[in-house]
Amino acid sequence: MENTHNFLLPKTNLMGTGAIKDLPNQLLSFKLSKVLIVTDKNMISLGYVDSIERILKNLFISYDIFDGILHPNPTVSFVEDGLTYLKKGFNVFKRNYKLIISIGGGTNHDCAKAIATVGTNGGSINDYEGFNKVTKPAIPHIAINTTAGSAAELTMFAIITDQSRKVKMAVASPFLTPYISVNDPIFMTTMPKEVTASSGIDVVSHAIEAFVSTEASPITDSLALKAIRLAFEYLPRAYENGNDLEAREKMMFANTMAGMAFNNAGLGYVHCMAHQLGGFYNQTHGCYNAVLLPYVFEFNSPSIPEERIFQLCEAIGPITRNRIQAIDIIIDSIHELRSKIEIPGNLTEMGLKAGDIEPLSQNALKDISAFTNPRQGFVDDIIYLIKSAS
Amino acid sequence: MENTHNFLLPKTNLMGTGAIKDLPNQLLSFKLSKVLIVTDKNMISLGYVDSIERILKNLFISYDIFDGILHPNPTVSFVEDGLTYLKKGFNVFKRNYKLIISIGGGTNHDCAKAIATVGTNGGSINDYEGFNKVTKPAIPHIAINTTAGSAAELTMFAIITDQSRKVKMAVASPFLTPYISVNDPIFMTTMPKEVTASSGIDVVSHAIEAFVSTEASPITDSLALKAIRLAFEYLPRAYENGNDLEAREKMMFANTMAGMAFNNAGLGYVHCMAHQLGGFYNQTHGCYNAVLLPYVFEFNSPSIPEERIFQLCEAIGPITRNRIQAIDIIIDSIHELRSKIEIPGNLTEMGLKAGDIEPLSQNALKDISAFTNPRQGFVDDIIYLIKSAS
Repeated sequence: MENTHNFLLPKTNLMGTGAIKDLPNQLLSFKLSKVLIVTDKNMISLGYVDSIERILKNLFISYDIFDGILHPNPTVSFVEDGLTYLKKGFNVFKRNYKLIISIGGGTNHDCAKAIATVGTNGGSINDYEGFNKVTKPAIPHIAINTTAGSAAELTMFAIITDQSRKVKMAVASPFLTPYISVNDPIFMTTMPKEVTASSGIDVVSHAIEAFVSTEASPITDSLALKAIRLAFEYLPRAYENGNDLEAREKMMFANTMAGMAFNNAGLGYVHCMAHQLGGFYNQTHGCYNAVLLPYVFEFNSPSIPEERIFQLCEAIGPITRNRIQAIDIIIDSIHELRSKIEIPGNLTEMGLKAGDIEPLSQNALKDISAFTNPRQGFVDDIIYLIKSAS
Repeated sequence: MENTHNFLLPKTNLMGTGAIKDLPNQLLSFKLSKVLIVTDKNMISLGYVDSIERILKNLFISYDIFDGILHPNPTVSFVEDGLTYLKKGFNVFKRNYKLIISIGGGTNHDCAKAIATVGTNGGSINDYEGFNKVTKPAIPHIAINTTAGSAAELTMFAIITDQSRKVKMAVASPFLTPYISVNDPIFMTTMPKEVTASSGIDVVSHAIEAFVSTEASPITDSLALKAIRLAFEYLPRAYENGNDLEAREKMMFANTMAGMAFNNAGLGYVHCMAHQLGGFYNQTHGCYNAVLLPYVFEFNSPSIPEERIFQLCEAIGPITRNRIQAIDIIIDSIHELRSKIEIPGNLTEMGLKAGDIEPLSQNALKDISAFTNPRQGFVDDIIYLIKSAS
């Protein structure tokens, strides 16, 4: 018997090749005085920010640009820098931003969510770490996505690094859900190979963790399985040729569906460890996921119902009704996909130091993603998993 | 190559057994003075309205009840009767409804959407027939669903009968999307057998029409296929024993997923004919769908890609790679499901008169559902289909 399985998503998700063309219509439904664009200098040089500026100018909407997001894994200090835009100027109208538009990948959307949240709730983003700590609606936020990806453009989560504690905080609240998500593959063709790879394997880990989550529902299951099917087929193509618009589009759908799934089913140990590793060593999130995923899947497998293992195996490719064989196929297929998209081999290569393993493991079990993992472990289990992937 | 495939849904969908318990939390996020409940006398006698009244009273939110929905297939006059609540009273506060809550099945939600739309946009609901004619947001609306079903609790459509023209009008606009949908199977166990049957087969027809629609996307595909799988398995069980909470819950998921699919992929000839037949003879919508579905599927089949036919067949049950065999299995399975849930056999038994066939067919091709049918036909094709099902 199922329990409650609420399903949350932005009400409006513009999607597909050319979807950006609908943005002006959507903006007209706001009564906008001023917009804050949250982005980074790379998005400006790629011309993506300019294309949004033109839309705003045509609608006579004024805007400011905060481009102070300096690297992936957004920090508290980026959020604070962005918040100064909401405070600066003597004229109250100067800071009366009615809308935030983020342009970029998950880093930029997460940073925008944090700015939008603190903008109305006050205090610091650290005050809202955890689940449902936000009490007021954030500033409305439209997320224009350029990766596939974190799915941050449509989820209720923001992952912000608190450098003082070396912790990636998860801030989770329905109030963080963007008002509109935009996923137009035209904005994704310039993604560098290594971003295609790391964000693409993030999609796979979202979908697999959501599918085996304790909070999975028939809705999240159907979305997760299709996302897995698409990602295993099209990620190598998108990696090989970034201008393959069909592959980009399929990966955009995979990203969206995996995001819809994990936003409502939650994630698991892959993500709670990857978050902490990212907090310590600041390497790419998706690469940690790629390395951890096979080991966590093997650890979880005794707790995953047989029928689910068969379904997962079938979504990846082969049909089998042998449990052990299916688990092996899944694990081998993840390794194979990782090798096709040339993601490095182990955590040691990604900066892991032996002395950090214990504090990392303790932090990992406190991450909200830990609660929906299908097999509940202890610190020793996390230590074992990290060592296995080292 | 895909084109744009925007995905719209209420931002918040409370779902699952006991989901209603989260309603008070959701209501707290509104600053509510007064609520208009839109429902019918049966919902009052079943105690469902009372359970919502208690929630409102506990939150000190005042409310009025409009229970003037007298039969399925809501009419313009029901909408007009509901609108008098928004106009009556000398005191402006008396009509300052900040929220509409509909309790019931699709009839009540559609009526509430129409009241909410005219409440802010003015005029009459007839002014908004068609796609995207609504220009202002409707009064916020929470739809508490008691069937599985029309999925009206989460879609952007309202189907309202204009009795003067004997036409079921489709009003479609993102502004009609409810703010929150509630699908708690606890509210569904009292559904009479014939409503379980007719609303359940409506789910099947939504899912199949969305899956073969010209606007289908990978997202709507995955949802539609899972809905079909669930409905074929659990509808006979829910029909046999209304207190089978597992079957009710699975049908609730099937309803929701089929609704998410057709809200974004659209429907086809089954619905455009069923709407017009309902306008003429006022019988249950789902029963028209049940009778038409196999004939329309056969008519459409030359235009449905082979791979899709195999996927559909597999969702229903058997796996085959023979196109003709797959089409036969699908058609036979629909007939078999219909017979299991005891839905009458043909359109003549449901009131069809020979002299009405031509005007009915002409109206059907003007229905918005016609545009996404995979095989585009002429009036003669519709006449042929109606005669086949007679």
